[in-house]
Amino acid sequence: MLHETDLNASLDKKTYKERIGPLENELGILQRELRTHKIPAIIVFEGWSSSGKGTQINAVLGPLDPRYFNVYTMKRVQEDAVMRPFLWSFFTKTPERGRITLLDKSWLMGLLPGGEGFVLSPREKRNLLGDINSFEEQLISDGTVIIKIFLHISKAEQKKRLSELENDPAKKWRVDDGDRAQNEDYDKFYATFDRLLAANAPEGSEWNVVAANDKKYASVKIYELIIEKLKAEIARREQAPTEPDSPPVVVPLQSARALGGVDLSKDISDGEYKKALGKYHREMNSICYGLYKKRRSVVIVFEGWDAAGKGGAIKRLTEALDPRGYEVVPVTAPTEEELSHHYLWRFWRKMPKDGHIAIFDRSWYGRVMVERVEGFCSEAEWKRAYKEINDMELAILNHGTAIIKFWLHIDADEQLERFTRRQKNPLKQYKITEEDWRNRGKWDAYETAVNDMIALTGTAGAPWHIIESNSKKYARVAVLEKVVETLTKGLDVP
Amino acid sequence: MLHETDLNASLDKKTYKERIGPLENELGILQRELRTHKIPAIIVFEGWSSSGKGTQINAVLGPLDPRYFNVYTMKRVQEDAVMRPFLWSFFTKTPERGRITLLDKSWLMGLLPGGEGFVLSPREKRNLLGDINSFEEQLISDGTVIIKIFLHISKAEQKKRLSELENDPAKKWRVDDGDRAQNEDYDKFYATFDRLLAANAPEGSEWNVVAANDKKYASVKIYELIIEKLKAEIARREQAPTEPDSPPVVVPLQSARALGGVDLSKDISDGEYKKALGKYHREMNSICYGLYKKRRSVVIVFEGWDAAGKGGAIKRLTEALDPRGYEVVPVTAPTEEELSHHYLWRFWRKMPKDGHIAIFDRSWYGRVMVERVEGFCSEAEWKRAYKEINDMELAILNHGTAIIKFWLHIDADEQLERFTRRQKNPLKQYKITEEDWRNRGKWDAYETAVNDMIALTGTAGAPWHIIESNSKKYARVAVLEKVVETLTKGLDVP
Repeated sequence: MLHETDLNASLDKKTYKERIGPLENELGILQRELRTHKIPAIIVFEGWSSSGKGTQINAVLGPLDPRYFNVYTMKRVQEDAVMRPFLWSFFTKTPERGRITLLDKSWLMGLLPGGEGFVLSPREKRNLLGDINSFEEQLISDGTVIIKIFLHISKAEQKKRLSELENDPAKKWRVDDGDRAQNEDYDKFYATFDRLLAANAPEGSEWNVVAANDKKYASVKIYELIIEKLKAEIARREQAPTEPDSPPVVVPLQSARALGGVDLSKDISDGEYKKALGKYHREMNSICYGLYKKRRSVVIVFEGWDAAGKGGAIKRLTEALDPRGYEVVPVTAPTEEELSHHYLWRFWRKMPKDGHIAIFDRSWYGRVMVERVEGFCSEAEWKRAYKEINDMELAILNHGTAIIKFWLHIDADEQLERFTRRQKNPLKQYKITEEDWRNRGKWDAYETAVNDMIALTGTAGAPWHIIESNSKKYARVAVLEKVVETLTKGLDVP
Repeated sequence: MLHETDLNASLDKKTYKERIGPLENELGILQRELRTHKIPAIIVFEGWSSSGKGTQINAVLGPLDPRYFNVYTMKRVQEDAVMRPFLWSFFTKTPERGRITLLDKSWLMGLLPGGEGFVLSPREKRNLLGDINSFEEQLISDGTVIIKIFLHISKAEQKKRLSELENDPAKKWRVDDGDRAQNEDYDKFYATFDRLLAANAPEGSEWNVVAANDKKYASVKIYELIIEKLKAEIARREQAPTEPDSPPVVVPLQSARALGGVDLSKDISDGEYKKALGKYHREMNSICYGLYKKRRSVVIVFEGWDAAGKGGAIKRLTEALDPRGYEVVPVTAPTEEELSHHYLWRFWRKMPKDGHIAIFDRSWYGRVMVERVEGFCSEAEWKRAYKEINDMELAILNHGTAIIKFWLHIDADEQLERFTRRQKNPLKQYKITEEDWRNRGKWDAYETAVNDMIALTGTAGAPWHIIESNSKKYARVAVLEKVVETLTKGLDVP
């Protein structure tokens, strides 16, 4: 990558002035078109120390309307970031449709030997490149333009710039040991950057190396790159392209009918129920303390048929938890703001801090259930969601977060009985709506979707637990048992 | 306060069991009614060290549906909080309508001599009680139920509990120097708590001291308190009360017609314009560095007639700023989530971190302009908003944040000309909508509202700057000049 760049490239002042004006105008107009087409864009500035990232970001901002972009400096350790999976810092900063996010430094930092301020578990570190590439692919599939710019300067030019800064008392503070080390070990860093830039290159989101010994040349080049990519995406949208072919859903044979073999007659007595609750509540106590001390976080997902007893099962679980250590996230129809981002954005925002537990009452699996069945997203969208969800869960697992997923299963007869009972009980009528009855009418379509979901997202690290729930008591104990079991085994993993 | 409490109060196990069951049932039902009536509630747990806050919070959570409450521990220094005005931590955690926020420790901490982990400027500290009382009053006016519970135990009981913890190896870590100091200085703390509990008592949000030597007695008492307050608010709502009398708007005579005397003929030449831009941009450079080093934050508010040139003025201002140090917050119609909170909640969330600048393109002043004129809020609501806004700005000023407010003023003829020009220019047509024309039709109503706003919220610490904007060049320079002037003077204040 780097060696293909001609570091002698430069522009004289006159040529620069002639060329930059029209480019600025064009970028200003393109920003408005981005808004019209609701296209989100991420522009990433990376490069050597003192390669001029700040200057170039400022140059690009010139013609932009400041109401519709955000600039984030990823350089320093962000307050919340160290306590969360690496990608959290980036996913939560993805722009709304029609807005631009500019990043000063990027996810490349996590891949550098030192990690540059990001604290990564060994497993997270090992798997980071894959997690990052998948993150970019997800955004691109969703229509985000990603423009990655690497500012390249020579060893001599870097040395000159660092010396100039160091000799200026007002600017001296801007040079730190890391900058000096980079110049001393220029060749080693060169090889590392070269490798990383080639490896972090999902289709449509490759790195652009810009020769930056000459700032004027770099500016013009950056404008051209940005304009070219934005125009291409706008053109693509204007052609109103036909929906891309949906990837085929290949359902593994052996588990394709996960719900088929479930024994719904399982039950326990009142005595067993009380005894079990007490036992697991006691065990959860020391497990929670262990999680907190070891700074391990947990994600628990509850999915299931309407009236399958999610609320009750969550209640019996949270009763066993320290209320300062968990949050229940009820997932309902997305808000306007949420719809204006990638569908996983709202869930990333809720990922727990290290030492904490997040309990999702319904979750991202809505994409492949209600959104699939009701047609709230396109076929291509739900078909690629299986991989996207697996990738997201993998990134979280890599960080060291435990994931526990429940499908609370009842049969159609039991559901009918519960619906009817609720409707007769004035205290519980509120729990049953027209929509519940409508969903019930589509039982078969939902059953197919659930079978696919369990087959395609039941991974080794985050398997589905199908809970037999015709008996509420049995189901509640089974959930607690599985949580205790997973966390007891899993506490020491990475 | 404290001495009125009988610390010997206790309940035997049998009485406790008889009484707690029905209370739990009742609280469960009340939570649902809160949701039905969309009533937000805040339950605050304060008290001596080892008075059992955690235990009592857990007891209250028993019957609650975990999807509709949040528990926040305010005990430790929160990551973001130290960098923001004191009230930010609390305002951003106020519940959505229909939800319950439970706080383990509260704003009382900021009033204790040590501040307990909150970092307050001397001025913030001096004014904190007033800021807090006003914050509670605002929430109450908006329909939030606030229930404040102080758990009171005797010196001997506290000593016994601390010793028990210290002698248990598994629990030893829960006792720190602060806890021990509190027991040693029990009498001094007693006097302080006594004074603070009486002083932090806005009408409808007084502290409830609960005798907590006996945990069973305290539990029952807490349940009763919560149930009583929730029932009272629900009853109030069910009576569908007539709107409370609106406080009269008393407009100070001398400035009542602020817009009347504005000289809109002011203008400057192209040469002066360019020279001034250059000068102020240079000066802003060192000001920004100063802000960052001194960790001072700035809030800049832009209000003005449609087409008065807010966008252009903001652009000329941000060009002078380090893009990593500011954020432009465009304020449009509130989202569902925002409507579901106090109207100031969405602005509190955007208050800048120390060292940063937040530029609001329209702001909380919408409450007393568009919401007043269009009837989006009730008369009582906009009439009390003047004080609420002044109080919010005061709390921010007390923290050390600078506030600069601009009204960009043009006359009706100039607006008409700009509207017409925009409509003829294909590149700018998007800037003009039906709504702009409708607003224009209500010029007089808006003018009255603006005059009132300027008279009633132009405070000494946060005065309004009326910018003569018939000339865009003149206006842009005037804005920059005022920002430079304010920040040059203001940097050293608290």
